[in-house]
Amino acid sequence: MPQLPETMRAIVAVKPGAPEVLELRTRPLPVPGPGEILVKVEAAGVNRPDVLQRLGRYQPPPGASDVIGLEIAGEVVALGPNAARHALGARVAALVPGGGYAEYCLAHESNALPIPAGLSAVEAAAIPETYFTVWTNVFERGALKAGETLLVHGGGSGIGTTAIQLAKAFGAHVVTTVGSDEKAKECVRLGADLAINYRTEDFVTATLAATGGRGADVILDMVGGDYVARNHAAAALDARIVQIAFLRGQKVEIDLHVVMAKRLWQTGSTLRPRTVAEKASIAEALRAKVWPLLAEGRCKPIVDSRFPLAEAAEAHRRMENSAHVGKIVLTI
Amino acid sequence: MPQLPETMRAIVAVKPGAPEVLELRTRPLPVPGPGEILVKVEAAGVNRPDVLQRLGRYQPPPGASDVIGLEIAGEVVALGPNAARHALGARVAALVPGGGYAEYCLAHESNALPIPAGLSAVEAAAIPETYFTVWTNVFERGALKAGETLLVHGGGSGIGTTAIQLAKAFGAHVVTTVGSDEKAKECVRLGADLAINYRTEDFVTATLAATGGRGADVILDMVGGDYVARNHAAAALDARIVQIAFLRGQKVEIDLHVVMAKRLWQTGSTLRPRTVAEKASIAEALRAKVWPLLAEGRCKPIVDSRFPLAEAAEAHRRMENSAHVGKIVLTI
Repeated sequence: MPQLPETMRAIVAVKPGAPEVLELRTRPLPVPGPGEILVKVEAAGVNRPDVLQRLGRYQPPPGASDVIGLEIAGEVVALGPNAARHALGARVAALVPGGGYAEYCLAHESNALPIPAGLSAVEAAAIPETYFTVWTNVFERGALKAGETLLVHGGGSGIGTTAIQLAKAFGAHVVTTVGSDEKAKECVRLGADLAINYRTEDFVTATLAATGGRGADVILDMVGGDYVARNHAAAALDARIVQIAFLRGQKVEIDLHVVMAKRLWQTGSTLRPRTVAEKASIAEALRAKVWPLLAEGRCKPIVDSRFPLAEAAEAHRRMENSAHVGKIVLTI
Repeated sequence: MPQLPETMRAIVAVKPGAPEVLELRTRPLPVPGPGEILVKVEAAGVNRPDVLQRLGRYQPPPGASDVIGLEIAGEVVALGPNAARHALGARVAALVPGGGYAEYCLAHESNALPIPAGLSAVEAAAIPETYFTVWTNVFERGALKAGETLLVHGGGSGIGTTAIQLAKAFGAHVVTTVGSDEKAKECVRLGADLAINYRTEDFVTATLAATGGRGADVILDMVGGDYVARNHAAAALDARIVQIAFLRGQKVEIDLHVVMAKRLWQTGSTLRPRTVAEKASIAEALRAKVWPLLAEGRCKPIVDSRFPLAEAAEAHRRMENSAHVGKIVLTI
């Protein structure tokens, strides 16, 4: 194991604002605490909450690094007290509460999993945030079952491409919405049974038509605003509508008559503020149920583009333009 | 078995309107179809949906009688083809899709249960609608567990008095809201740990204080309107908020950030449009889990008042004044 440096380069938002507020700064190397590992980052995923954090609209949880970044892949280079799950030199993908856009990053050993066989560090860094999110929201909270229909909005996003592949791998039908015909084609290539261009078609009508009038059993939504009432209109009896963000509005109107008549479950969750133990439980489920699929190539992270760490601002611009299909990844 | 008459007296709303539109009319005796029983009604419960139906705001489901009334108790006097669950002469309490305010009423045999030992027909008629509703919404949909806290609005109503007793019998803590200090006393007498007079106290603050800041795990709400956002404020992490009516408004605003941060489940259901088989499944659970409690006197239907069938209008006036604690029952 080479001698570790005392400092590292890391990306921070020097003030809330446009992508150019992201600057490369020198920081002391973090020191792993009990159960933690220090990872030499090879690649870090870019996520929508990173953009919100840059804008000053999403504070890191107490104790988390102010360095942006929620997922990494790389090599374990130091172990904290009692960290015994991953050996020094092991290559892992980890969900982290912050600090990902950096040369080194701490992770709790229970929130890190081995890089699946056959995947590059860039692909592995594109896994944690979307796979943890999709697993806990679609399969645990939404309890999607084989034969049911999933409606996932933002089919071209990291969340969307992951949800499409996992839902198909577990035997569900998948309807998705996208913003262009190109993205629609890509989603169908990934397995979606129907990809609706929301700019030219009403997703409620299309979803009902695709399900013989029954509607979707699980809906994964990051749009919010008027989509919530439309999700309810597109939902089947006893459907679970799971909110993971609200790009188009936080305060929304719902019709209690529809909720009662269809016996809907409007729910939602956030990943980042959960305890290490809760994230570890999701990690265990992923290791058991999803890692084998990744190793067999039955699903894979879709990488849209990669940018060097120093060009994090450019990566954010690409995310904000919503032109991407799959994940945007920083390489270190 | 005495000869059955060819006609009977029954209450119908001759047009939508105030209580006086309820009139006694003569109707042909209904004939039981496959799996149905004919019950000589001794008592019929009065429910909030009866008032809505009288006002023309709640149409009976297709095929249901236009005679008002959703629950009855009395003697089985005729059996339809294949009806074998209850003997002629047996005394039953039944949930019916309509037709309850009458001398005779049809019920599906699977939606009828024996009158629990020691209860009068009046008490038995006060059971089905509230016990089916509370069981399916609080214990099945809401999955209330021992040690958790139930917040039930309208503690003085038939639903409220039933929910308080059942939740306590199954080991939960109970917080309830009522419109007067007299009703508060009555609810505490029935077992509620805290009864909040909503006219003088904010139920959100009081519920949070009563749970050490944690909030309620299950909320049973028939108020709607601004109560929905307030329910979310009073809810614990992972709470289930179950809507069964919306006396104060059907279209309501919710805050997706709260839903996600607390991982809430906003749901709801209606009882009347469900299939006979779904109601039979609730009946089976009640027979197994709740009938023994009724027979032991560990819970009992609370009867507010009784009115002769011909005075159904008076019974509706009492319900609309909301002065009652427990059920209003018609006697035949």
